[in-house]
Amino acid sequence: MSSQATHPALMIPGPIEFDDAVLQSMSHFSESHVGPAFVSIFGDTLAMLRKLFQTTNPASQPFVINGSGTLGWDIVAVNLVEPGEDVLVLSSGYFGDAFADCFAAYGAKVTTITGAVGSRPQLDEIEKALKEKKYKLITATHVDTSTGVLFELKPLTDLVKRVSPETLIIADGVCSVACEEIAFDDWGLDGVITASQKAIGCPTGLSISMFSGRAIDVVKNRKTEPATYFASMKRWLPVMQNYEAKKPSYFSTPSPQLIRALHTAVSQVLARPLSERFQKHIEVSDKVKKAVADLGLKVVAAKREDQAHAMTAIYLPDSVSGPDLLPKLLNKGIIFAGGLHKEIGSKYVRFGHMGPSTMDPKKSDIDNALQALREALAECGYKP
Amino acid sequence: MSSQATHPALMIPGPIEFDDAVLQSMSHFSESHVGPAFVSIFGDTLAMLRKLFQTTNPASQPFVINGSGTLGWDIVAVNLVEPGEDVLVLSSGYFGDAFADCFAAYGAKVTTITGAVGSRPQLDEIEKALKEKKYKLITATHVDTSTGVLFELKPLTDLVKRVSPETLIIADGVCSVACEEIAFDDWGLDGVITASQKAIGCPTGLSISMFSGRAIDVVKNRKTEPATYFASMKRWLPVMQNYEAKKPSYFSTPSPQLIRALHTAVSQVLARPLSERFQKHIEVSDKVKKAVADLGLKVVAAKREDQAHAMTAIYLPDSVSGPDLLPKLLNKGIIFAGGLHKEIGSKYVRFGHMGPSTMDPKKSDIDNALQALREALAECGYKP
Repeated sequence: MSSQATHPALMIPGPIEFDDAVLQSMSHFSESHVGPAFVSIFGDTLAMLRKLFQTTNPASQPFVINGSGTLGWDIVAVNLVEPGEDVLVLSSGYFGDAFADCFAAYGAKVTTITGAVGSRPQLDEIEKALKEKKYKLITATHVDTSTGVLFELKPLTDLVKRVSPETLIIADGVCSVACEEIAFDDWGLDGVITASQKAIGCPTGLSISMFSGRAIDVVKNRKTEPATYFASMKRWLPVMQNYEAKKPSYFSTPSPQLIRALHTAVSQVLARPLSERFQKHIEVSDKVKKAVADLGLKVVAAKREDQAHAMTAIYLPDSVSGPDLLPKLLNKGIIFAGGLHKEIGSKYVRFGHMGPSTMDPKKSDIDNALQALREALAECGYKP
Repeated sequence: MSSQATHPALMIPGPIEFDDAVLQSMSHFSESHVGPAFVSIFGDTLAMLRKLFQTTNPASQPFVINGSGTLGWDIVAVNLVEPGEDVLVLSSGYFGDAFADCFAAYGAKVTTITGAVGSRPQLDEIEKALKEKKYKLITATHVDTSTGVLFELKPLTDLVKRVSPETLIIADGVCSVACEEIAFDDWGLDGVITASQKAIGCPTGLSISMFSGRAIDVVKNRKTEPATYFASMKRWLPVMQNYEAKKPSYFSTPSPQLIRALHTAVSQVLARPLSERFQKHIEVSDKVKKAVADLGLKVVAAKREDQAHAMTAIYLPDSVSGPDLLPKLLNKGIIFAGGLHKEIGSKYVRFGHMGPSTMDPKKSDIDNALQALREALAECGYKP
């Protein structure tokens, strides 16, 4: 087994490179999930998540549950929507489409507005849809990991509040929390779901979410009981409240190692102002996008305002396919991800530039990745 | 933070003490969930689970999903049963009752047979119930972690196969896999669900299950689609099959760190014959039960044949409560769990003796725990 110091740099849009201290927390000795030391760490972690999501409203409620980003979709779909209710899904790629599938699995009536490849649904289409029908809930993928398309949330929440204020607004923040600005209270979001292994910088294994008091009230006032057990917000709510109040509580065993790693990761994120963190991701994104343009290549997200700041999906030259390029990058110690969008699969690759690789001044992952990209393309016979 | 070498011994019925090598795997450097190194490790882990569950039938299917033991209940309840179908739950404590709640949440018609505290449902009652109604599925908690009551599965599977052979037989093996004998094929089980953090000896965070070909066929031939996304066996099935065939596959991101830790833990379990492992747990259990009797105390599981071999729930003297005793044990470096059964909560404590604490000859956790128990009871003023 190679050591942490010498392994290839994982520059995919999650999981990402982890800080040594985070990985050390993963190997913390065994402790009880209801013992005072762990309860305190879990409680502090929940409190820190409020800062990360920029919510000071005490009615907001964080949840951290063993799972993954996908589980967050289930939590939204089964708790906030009752079978037969209307949901509007805004899709910018694979993950938006899959979120729609998740709602449908639970019996919601789903309307999906899908952006063209490399784009996102437009506000005028959304306004039209919201005026045609009353939706219980609208959801947008803040950054779709399959395309690197950013959906700016503030104009969307402004629109929904103007046209259909009763509609709950949920953001899939799997690829945006801790790298893109999210002002939970100021923007009036009702829910943001995410996962541990992206910009937060903790290994995979946790579903992390924040819900507004209004969303919690919707759960409490349902006409029907939600058809789930493990993903039941009602069952987890007192457990999360107790942990945050430093009281032991039990519904299903949390993972002390993952929660300790999350505590370490979020502590690192919050050690500097969030604004500085978001700005740094913008600067690195600009640098990556410029290097891509200098190579004569295009970013999948066509318009600048639709480009995510912590990943870049890059169209390859016609003469080069993803499966050709990726092994050459690996030979240079850099791992990119292949394409995930069904219409453009092998024509592009995905480069994640978030978390420690972007924030840690001791790491040269970004420059190394750009240099490896230039060299690997040259080896494929491509000249800009 | 104390080091792994000097921390108090976690002698609760899960999570348990972990081997150093398992914890080191938890801090493995970041790697892609679809990269060849990880895919190979995950595939090998799935193949090893077949050995752990003692199934060689190629139709059997292991699943490993981010989650916990609880998620296994959801997987069973939403995939194998359709709303309105009859389920028979055999309960020996808190966890059997909770499994029944889980089935009810998904719309199953649940009949529960509950053993008296410290006992389990009896075969004659079960036979009577099976003859009165056709059940789609029957489930038993192999070891109920709240009471330490063992439900021997072989006589149960014999009974079900004789009286109601069409009924799917599911065991909750959260507190039994890797410490109690489970012969998946020989006994004709259709499903066993478990979690990573008990006798398998891997940190919390994984739902681990094995299903028979018959159970998989039931999933494939449902009349209605299961109302879940994250817990959908249909969605996970090709992913598990691909990983085991060493092909990258994606539905929802698995945790490379947890899967590596599971690989290490299961490799250690399988390094010696399973029969030897089960026998060692029986010997340590006998030693613990004798020490409890020598102290003039009773085990919650009244009959010897109902006593689990990897945990012991111990009734305290009338003059001593769990909340009195536990801090005194902690002062001696031993962590036991409090009571979890609603009828006898503070009157008993739970002692887990499974995994490395039982199997590793270099560890003296069991002797230390028994000595600490004797001393702590004496400090509480109790004389045998």
